[in-house]
Amino acid sequence: MRHYFHPEIEDVCLPDVLFALSDATRLGIAVALADGKERTAGELGGSLAKSTMTHHLKVLREAGALRVRSEGTRCYNSLRLEELQERFPGLLDHLLGFAVKCGYTSADARSRD
Amino acid sequence: MRHYFHPEIEDVCLPDVLFALSDATRLGIAVALADGKERTAGELGGSLAKSTMTHHLKVLREAGALRVRSEGTRCYNSLRLEELQERFPGLLDHLLGFAVKCGYTSADARSRD
Repeated sequence: MRHYFHPEIEDVCLPDVLFALSDATRLGIAVALADGKERTAGELGGSLAKSTMTHHLKVLREAGALRVRSEGTRCYNSLRLEELQERFPGLLDHLLGFAVKCGYTSADARSRD
Repeated sequence: MRHYFHPEIEDVCLPDVLFALSDATRLGIAVALADGKERTAGELGGSLAKSTMTHHLKVLREAGALRVRSEGTRCYNSLRLEELQERFPGLLDHLLGFAVKCGYTSADARSRD
């Protein structure tokens, strides 16, 4: 099972989180995951090239915004909502609220339930 | 007098503003200018190399977060606080509040009055 690096939440810094969200696709991914559910890259990616989606998920993960869980051959992505809420209270809600208003939504993302 | 490009506020997009603030130095500059006053690059820069400060001010300006006003041979920088407040209500206050808490302050920035 592949191991993915996740920074400790106390090491997550504001510039990195802002950088992770400074891209229309990554904002869309974050909006799609804001319900707290896990999704695979395929479920999130829609028409995006797999390598492109892998890159964007890596940026979100390394910034501390996203957690990847391996299960068998599949990887499930989710936002680190509770940890981020504790570290930067209200930040993600605030940013994703604007992201939705501005139309950065992942129309292709499908719910897993 | 040199002309500086400033995007129209309606063309300012969320990812660009987040990118502009996704750097410790630029967060510090924004915190230093959050009082609404104008400052020169020298007043903001402290020990930073002039070219480094010029780069950071350009990123903030091109993202729509900062306005430069030329007067004679000097340039005065200020945040586009009112316009940004209208475009993304509360966003800058929210982000700069976290920036201050996280210690991204421009200790070298001096007030002009």
